[in-house]
Amino acid sequence: MNRRRLYRLMDPAARDAAARAFRLAHHVMVAAGIAAMLAATVAALRQEYAVEIDVLFAIVAAFFIAEFVVRVIVAPEAPGAEQRGAARARAAWLFSLGGAVDFLGALPGAIDLVGSHDARLFSFVWIFKYVRYSPGLASLGRVITQARRALLSVLLGFSIVLLAAASLAYLFERHANPVGFSSIPAALWWAIVTLTTTGYGDVVPQTLPGRMLAGIVMVSGILVFALWAGILASGYADEVRRREFLRTWELVAKVPFFRNLGASVIAEVARLLHPREYPMGAVIMRRGEPGDCMYFVVDGEVAIQLQPEAIVLGPGQFFGELALLSGAPRNATVTAASHCVLLTLDIVDFHELRGRQPELARAIHEEADRRLAPEAAAEVATAGSSDSR
Amino acid sequence: MNRRRLYRLMDPAARDAAARAFRLAHHVMVAAGIAAMLAATVAALRQEYAVEIDVLFAIVAAFFIAEFVVRVIVAPEAPGAEQRGAARARAAWLFSLGGAVDFLGALPGAIDLVGSHDARLFSFVWIFKYVRYSPGLASLGRVITQARRALLSVLLGFSIVLLAAASLAYLFERHANPVGFSSIPAALWWAIVTLTTTGYGDVVPQTLPGRMLAGIVMVSGILVFALWAGILASGYADEVRRREFLRTWELVAKVPFFRNLGASVIAEVARLLHPREYPMGAVIMRRGEPGDCMYFVVDGEVAIQLQPEAIVLGPGQFFGELALLSGAPRNATVTAASHCVLLTLDIVDFHELRGRQPELARAIHEEADRRLAPEAAAEVATAGSSDSR
Amino acid sequence: MNRRRLYRLMDPAARDAAARAFRLAHHVMVAAGIAAMLAATVAALRQEYAVEIDVLFAIVAAFFIAEFVVRVIVAPEAPGAEQRGAARARAAWLFSLGGAVDFLGALPGAIDLVGSHDARLFSFVWIFKYVRYSPGLASLGRVITQARRALLSVLLGFSIVLLAAASLAYLFERHANPVGFSSIPAALWWAIVTLTTTGYGDVVPQTLPGRMLAGIVMVSGILVFALWAGILASGYADEVRRREFLRTWELVAKVPFFRNLGASVIAEVARLLHPREYPMGAVIMRRGEPGDCMYFVVDGEVAIQLQPEAIVLGPGQFFGELALLSGAPRNATVTAASHCVLLTLDIVDFHELRGRQPELARAIHEEADRRLAPEAAAEVATAGSSDSR
Amino acid sequence: MNRRRLYRLMDPAARDAAARAFRLAHHVMVAAGIAAMLAATVAALRQEYAVEIDVLFAIVAAFFIAEFVVRVIVAPEAPGAEQRGAARARAAWLFSLGGAVDFLGALPGAIDLVGSHDARLFSFVWIFKYVRYSPGLASLGRVITQARRALLSVLLGFSIVLLAAASLAYLFERHANPVGFSSIPAALWWAIVTLTTTGYGDVVPQTLPGRMLAGIVMVSGILVFALWAGILASGYADEVRRREFLRTWELVAKVPFFRNLGASVIAEVARLLHPREYPMGAVIMRRGEPGDCMYFVVDGEVAIQLQPEAIVLGPGQFFGELALLSGAPRNATVTAASHCVLLTLDIVDFHELRGRQPELARAIHEEADRRLAPEAAAEVATAGSSDSR
Repeated sequence: MNRRRLYRLMDPAARDAAARAFRLAHHVMVAAGIAAMLAATVAALRQEYAVEIDVLFAIVAAFFIAEFVVRVIVAPEAPGAEQRGAARARAAWLFSLGGAVDFLGALPGAIDLVGSHDARLFSFVWIFKYVRYSPGLASLGRVITQARRALLSVLLGFSIVLLAAASLAYLFERHANPVGFSSIPAALWWAIVTLTTTGYGDVVPQTLPGRMLAGIVMVSGILVFALWAGILASGYADEVRRREFLRTWELVAKVPFFRNLGASVIAEVARLLHPREYPMGAVIMRRGEPGDCMYFVVDGEVAIQLQPEAIVLGPGQFFGELALLSGAPRNATVTAASHCVLLTLDIVDFHELRGRQPELARAIHEEADRRLAPEAAAEVATAGSSDSR
Repeated sequence: MNRRRLYRLMDPAARDAAARAFRLAHHVMVAAGIAAMLAATVAALRQEYAVEIDVLFAIVAAFFIAEFVVRVIVAPEAPGAEQRGAARARAAWLFSLGGAVDFLGALPGAIDLVGSHDARLFSFVWIFKYVRYSPGLASLGRVITQARRALLSVLLGFSIVLLAAASLAYLFERHANPVGFSSIPAALWWAIVTLTTTGYGDVVPQTLPGRMLAGIVMVSGILVFALWAGILASGYADEVRRREFLRTWELVAKVPFFRNLGASVIAEVARLLHPREYPMGAVIMRRGEPGDCMYFVVDGEVAIQLQPEAIVLGPGQFFGELALLSGAPRNATVTAASHCVLLTLDIVDFHELRGRQPELARAIHEEADRRLAPEAAAEVATAGSSDSR
Repeated sequence: MNRRRLYRLMDPAARDAAARAFRLAHHVMVAAGIAAMLAATVAALRQEYAVEIDVLFAIVAAFFIAEFVVRVIVAPEAPGAEQRGAARARAAWLFSLGGAVDFLGALPGAIDLVGSHDARLFSFVWIFKYVRYSPGLASLGRVITQARRALLSVLLGFSIVLLAAASLAYLFERHANPVGFSSIPAALWWAIVTLTTTGYGDVVPQTLPGRMLAGIVMVSGILVFALWAGILASGYADEVRRREFLRTWELVAKVPFFRNLGASVIAEVARLLHPREYPMGAVIMRRGEPGDCMYFVVDGEVAIQLQPEAIVLGPGQFFGELALLSGAPRNATVTAASHCVLLTLDIVDFHELRGRQPELARAIHEEADRRLAPEAAAEVATAGSSDSR
Repeated sequence: MNRRRLYRLMDPAARDAAARAFRLAHHVMVAAGIAAMLAATVAALRQEYAVEIDVLFAIVAAFFIAEFVVRVIVAPEAPGAEQRGAARARAAWLFSLGGAVDFLGALPGAIDLVGSHDARLFSFVWIFKYVRYSPGLASLGRVITQARRALLSVLLGFSIVLLAAASLAYLFERHANPVGFSSIPAALWWAIVTLTTTGYGDVVPQTLPGRMLAGIVMVSGILVFALWAGILASGYADEVRRREFLRTWELVAKVPFFRNLGASVIAEVARLLHPREYPMGAVIMRRGEPGDCMYFVVDGEVAIQLQPEAIVLGPGQFFGELALLSGAPRNATVTAASHCVLLTLDIVDFHELRGRQPELARAIHEEADRRLAPEAAAEVATAGSSDSR
């Protein structure tokens, strides 16, 4: 197996069977490693299954050491790395987030080999290996990164309130509560437990001014929550808009029906369409249901269940527009004939599009009329033909 | 009673008297069953009212078993099921959410018959029978479904933080706090209580690093809250927009005044109108109040209280536009002469519409001028006449 | 004093000196009554100041009984009530929210007279008398009313989760924790304390399944929070938009500069302007500061501090546009010569307006050029003259 | 050193080396002062390092007294203060927020000099000295200020609920729980701990009505959270939009490529561009990555890594548009040759701009075509030349 194929095998974005198998093995290893670590800290399990836990830990640790070594070797295969030379590509990878996590993931096993058993406790870092495989976490990370200045400002304000609260609480409570408020650092513990509205109840103010201060601190805690929620809500809405657009943009370009449109129309259409995936056999729409969106096939095939026999639509064709135009219920059931990717156009957006892009709406109308004509028995769009017009 | 009528009777969307009576009986049964289950667990009540509780439980359980059986029988009457054959329609229903809840709802009674009294404790599943009848829960469910990827990503992040926090807390606290932090699984209990800012206070870190870690965990908990709130806020806003549009769209098509408009204008109008229902006798607007919206009658009748006698407006007519145009207070009180459905157009949106749809605004103006002419005494719109122009 | 003047005196919207004095007295009475009630429950204070507390309570109670009686008498003076006859107007008022609060507010004193001292504890209802005077609470109330269906759906979901959690917790914990989980109603107490993430810590699950359930309940609690926050966030944003528009719309109509504009332009301008009030003597803008908005005077007068002498601008005139057009810092300090109401146009919206309403922008530009000409020494707009063009 | 230079030195917005050094010293002093105060309250540290703590405290206190005196002296140098006379400028500064904080910051040292050691505990006010240097806190402060009426309305509603809850809890619980609910003021402590969902658990209701009330109070607490979050979310979104626009607006005016555009086009472009800063050496885009935005250089220089040698772009030039136009991956790596400020145009907004501003898009297209011509080897924009066309 050469270096390039190894790189491809370990690429989180690769879709071939070998890469999938590697990912499965990787995830099983992470889960097994975490389970071994958890079991090792429970006295009852540790005594009974000492050998099994040791073996399991050794296997997982060996796997991650091997993974780390292989990733160091194949690092020069990363896109854009070819010009930099192998040594610099490897250094760059080591100092990236992924490299750091893999390095830390190799450590517990390495140290354990040398002799210190306590190193195992650090094997919780293995769970961070999942992060690379989750696109959702990546986009949450981007939201937090974009909003980091605002979040840090709230955190600074939080710290200021914290210190002021702890100092005043120390002043008010140190005589009534000599253990919990023995010093300002001790009072800080009370302050953070209160400001986050966690409220363990291990330290509770006793004096009237102390309790009034606590009330203000709790309400300020709600304010911090609320500010953070507000910041992340507006950041997240932006991120969603952006990610959806990018994904749809890519897919729209694959639909022949849209290919002839000008750039600005495509941008507008992409804003309105939403991508959706269906596994093979899933029911996309059911005869008799009210219709609230139409579909464009991007990838895979769908089967329209009609009486003599089902009709199969492939990429570039659309269906479901009749129910939107006429308001009648769906006149056929449609299922996914293979795993397929569709773009949906909601009724709300369909009517907006009709107002703004009359030519596009006309093309859909003409197709629909053609289908309703006597010789066209079913709700079928041959995007190829509508495209050739 | 034939199968079709039975199906209609149990359809949550049916509006006839029999279906309403069935729904009432169903809801009473759910409430009674839950009450019986609660009472059965309270020692004092169980001893005193043992017979009454058993009878009540038996009645409710019998009702739900009967409902389940009937629903299995009538399943082939569901829309779109006729082609599939009775057996397949029944299987499809059994594996739907509604079927599963009804099956689980029949179980406690069935098992209790066989002999095990503990089965009664599972009769809390009866409360899920309400879900089918709440359109609000359905739309919340849709919001959560749409946002499920993002919510799950947050949950994955949450789990990673949880495990890391528990491992570190175990490292820091195991000697100072040998009971609460006896193992990492034990520390996980502390971590989740802290990360959700619940803070029972049964396990509290004692060491300085443990407390600093706890502070970070609490603040991360706020971040999780805030991320989730942000995700759901943007999802909910979308859902509201969508649901309102669909409902209004349907209603706008019933108003003759709008019928002549082109499709794109209707889409724009539907975006601005908001449906509102009034019970019979409700005061819709009061003479002398400032006017902040106008109304279109969709369904039912309204009565304008004028001096010689009240004028009645029916579907398709509009009123309340004079106060918007002139800025003067309402010149008459309007009440609902029957249960009625109106579409309201807010002053904010009315002026937006004036800018974008001048012809529509002109039609409203002309009607208003006609009403203010000497022979037109009252604020009445005869949409039929404005329609015939 | 006749009935009409009495009504005016007690109208929360009245602005004359007598009405202000009444409001002040009213608020003092509410505060004093609440203070008396609080003091009466503290043993130390009750013993020492028994007579003072009794006298204070008697005065406040008498005031509220008198207020209630007078409001009943003057109810027929309410706008729109003249046609209904005095008796029906009074009944209508009694069954309104304000009437109910005033009735409840009169009760503690009335019952206390008859002899029961415990009635005093209900005098906390007096605090609800503030609600009528707070426009902010009214608009929050409107947000909650508008969103009530969605909030209630969340509450229904909350109740379902609560019952399911309590039943399962009872199943898991009844043997390990016979006090806290003695029955399902007892477990409900634990469930609500946990689901709201309050976490008193008086009942804590001990078994492993109980703790796993608790973790799920806590996370569900965050979901409820987040859903509610999302619903109210989108409702509140709508309400703010609506209220601001209505207020601005009213004010824009008073500015001669805007009077010649068509209806649709006014609607657009009103969307961009924001009303702001300044007390007499307040500094509106300061020489040398960067300029980020311009101002239109709606009510009152402002003084531009120029060297030979200050120039006074009255309603309908505008200022501050030079800094927006040229990007230079403010060239004069402007203070409020009396209590005044201004409309501000933010630089962001100013440039949007320039793009969309070129004629309006040209009028502002011409005025600015005229002011910069040698004979026009100061940044002064005479809207009268720009209006007459 | 004259007064003007001293003022410049202490100006938080100044960018020269002396001002930076002063800011560093200031921040170190704040941190050292807080550390000394914290240490002084911990018994172990206070005994061992008494002298060191005293010396450190004295240095910091002296620094802040000196800073206060100097700021009073240089206050007349503030912009816009020259006309008011030195005495009035100083008074104005003293009563500003900054002046108040500096005055309070000088107090602990001053009082300590006189003799009272307890004054040291108030030196937590020093942490507020950071506020002046944080633009993020200033903008959060503006969000809270703008939303203060709505936040205060929620707080009023919160207080009403609090008092009602405490009164009812006192009624229900005073016999079962004579310590925790000894009086309504005592019950208020329980109420605020519960309403903010803090839940210390020191006072827990025991009776059934008390627990039902507690449940309602907890749910109301979530409502308060949610309302606040909603208010701040919408306020924060406005603030972000406003701040970004102002910053971008300023930068757009510096890019020659945009200088010929009309005012309305610039306003639109500024809405779409986002400023971003890069330190020297940072990688802005990497060869082979997919391209999701293009860049305009505002300040500093960037180096395009091409094969014979790197090409340097300065202010006014743009790059990265090829990947957007063609969809191909980046064809070169670009790094920051110095600290630089760029404006980025996201692919989403780029396509929106193409639709709305065809001339601008054409200019970018022409530039791109020119670069792809045989003689133009690299992805380089010479905005100067595109400007001169």
